[in-house]
Amino acid sequence: MEYGFQFVKKDPSCAARLGTIRTAHGDVDTPAFMPVGTQGTIKALLPEEARALGAQMILSNTYHLYLRPGHELIRSLGGLHKFMNWPGPILTDSGGFQIFSLGALMKIKEDGVSFRSHIDGARHFISPETAVEIQEALGSDIMMCLDECTPYPATLKEARESLALTLRWAKRSRDAKTSDRQALFGILQGGIYDSLREEAAYEMQAIGFDGYALGGLSVGEPKECMMNIVEGITPLLPENRPRYLMGAGTPEDIVDSVMCGIDLFDCVIPTRSARNGLLFTNQENIVIKNARYRTDRAPVDETCDCYCCRHYSRAYLRHLFMAREILAMILNTIHNVRYYMRLMEDIRSAVRDGRFLDFRQHFFNIRPSKTGD
Amino acid sequence: MEYGFQFVKKDPSCAARLGTIRTAHGDVDTPAFMPVGTQGTIKALLPEEARALGAQMILSNTYHLYLRPGHELIRSLGGLHKFMNWPGPILTDSGGFQIFSLGALMKIKEDGVSFRSHIDGARHFISPETAVEIQEALGSDIMMCLDECTPYPATLKEARESLALTLRWAKRSRDAKTSDRQALFGILQGGIYDSLREEAAYEMQAIGFDGYALGGLSVGEPKECMMNIVEGITPLLPENRPRYLMGAGTPEDIVDSVMCGIDLFDCVIPTRSARNGLLFTNQENIVIKNARYRTDRAPVDETCDCYCCRHYSRAYLRHLFMAREILAMILNTIHNVRYYMRLMEDIRSAVRDGRFLDFRQHFFNIRPSKTGD
Repeated sequence: MEYGFQFVKKDPSCAARLGTIRTAHGDVDTPAFMPVGTQGTIKALLPEEARALGAQMILSNTYHLYLRPGHELIRSLGGLHKFMNWPGPILTDSGGFQIFSLGALMKIKEDGVSFRSHIDGARHFISPETAVEIQEALGSDIMMCLDECTPYPATLKEARESLALTLRWAKRSRDAKTSDRQALFGILQGGIYDSLREEAAYEMQAIGFDGYALGGLSVGEPKECMMNIVEGITPLLPENRPRYLMGAGTPEDIVDSVMCGIDLFDCVIPTRSARNGLLFTNQENIVIKNARYRTDRAPVDETCDCYCCRHYSRAYLRHLFMAREILAMILNTIHNVRYYMRLMEDIRSAVRDGRFLDFRQHFFNIRPSKTGD
Repeated sequence: MEYGFQFVKKDPSCAARLGTIRTAHGDVDTPAFMPVGTQGTIKALLPEEARALGAQMILSNTYHLYLRPGHELIRSLGGLHKFMNWPGPILTDSGGFQIFSLGALMKIKEDGVSFRSHIDGARHFISPETAVEIQEALGSDIMMCLDECTPYPATLKEARESLALTLRWAKRSRDAKTSDRQALFGILQGGIYDSLREEAAYEMQAIGFDGYALGGLSVGEPKECMMNIVEGITPLLPENRPRYLMGAGTPEDIVDSVMCGIDLFDCVIPTRSARNGLLFTNQENIVIKNARYRTDRAPVDETCDCYCCRHYSRAYLRHLFMAREILAMILNTIHNVRYYMRLMEDIRSAVRDGRFLDFRQHFFNIRPSKTGD
């Protein structure tokens, strides 16, 4: 099966939309959230558990897999799907975001970016071409172009130069692609500047990609900035290509971004929060180490259908967390990933029925501590 | 269902025997190995996974649960089975072994033992009576008497005095028991002295227990000492009660002890080794971080039927371990627990067919690096 995106319908009262991404490893119903499997595993989950929780596509990090165990090893063992026992769709990032997070340990040139490994300090160099080559070795279903993640804050001049580099790299990335079975998405940068973001939207479409991502958001800018960009740019993107908001976000971010027409999300929040003992519910979030849960025989969320909520009390989860048991991380992750997957199911159902704005209003009404409006 | 032990048959050529322990939470086929769930969870396993791997009864530690989250809390939440979502049989130790391991932080008197918590340094006191009371609150199917774990080495005089205290405490434990649904096992001490061990066997039977355990072994004495005691004492124990070798052991220890008529084992070796990257196989054990496994596409053990061996390569497991991923601990634990459960299944099958000595010979032949003979 070739890659493709099928636009299904738009909610009549906002930009929220329903679609299906088709890949060689199966379909993904959008709007979709991808749990993050940085090093070839979603932390604390078996792949079968992730699938049972509702995950259709996962994200894996090129930077980490390139350094360890190495993309050539993964290729020789049959590719990332087989290596990690995940038969479903995989999206890989380009590695750029992680490399740019190295700060003083990396240096950007026209050709590409040189950096030192966070593991052993060894020198490496990745260009737009090698980023595609690595992702082709991994065999992911959707690859991302190497881009320069424009930091926040950045001056207009800095953001303009950064975008120009990202556009040149995007062209080189598209030209470097050799695999027909793998899709390639372009990434729109431009900081918080509307004019640059618009330029990015047009120039990226001129190059032509299988999908378009918004990058350089959720990097410290105020939430209003992010939502302004999302709201302003999605109308400039083609209806027949998926739109991916990279690295977002909170449940509130997701609901608001879907309203603007975003189809795809990834974020470490559900999995990382789980390991830190923060549990999502339809009402307020739970900090499980809080003493008030010591004797609490209720599940995390009475309305949740996950394995954790069906079998365990808050008191037990608190005990596991205080005792630093591995099962705490497992059960918390199961719950939070299921929370996110249920959120996406509810979102898709609302769009399907043309009642997304009502859904969104209700969502914010029952999470009073958050001000997404 | 009341507690009971059904002796099924003895291998004609040695003391190995087959039986069934009946409890209010189900049956346990013996010889049996209990995975250890110290703090109300088998580290890195869901209860359903442990059951699917073949575990019938698990062990939980009274000392840890008494300190955190507290036995009264567990009682108020419906008991340990419900708390930890393990519907099968549970054996709890008395807490004695952990308390005596505190060394300078504990003090033994005729009444009981006072100690400081390893968690917060708070003072506590446990007597034979309170050890039973705590285990009744937990609701385990098999409780253990508080005993003094005689250290190795100990002089004959020290071991004699220690045994005398353990015998007085055993009588008090039996008198303190109020629950009819929970069995109580006595623990035989006596160090490495045959005469004391024999005295322990007779005196404990005179008090009368639902099963008899050998304690104070696997505490540093040479393996030959342990096997001498096991071989010498089991003939003195009644046929119609289970015999439990506490804290043992390696696969080799288990095979040799079954030959002497032991029915029940517990040990942290399979689970702790898994977390440290040591994997058991029918041939030599695997240290998964070894560089030779970097590109190894074979499973841990070609002959193993576990989830880990059916889906993952040594190369992937090595990657997870080097990257310190939680999934490394999960998959390694699944494999090692399954190895132990298969070992027990093979042992029971061999005893059933009256070919245990052949089984044992074959077992040691294919594990050449170990000298169990």
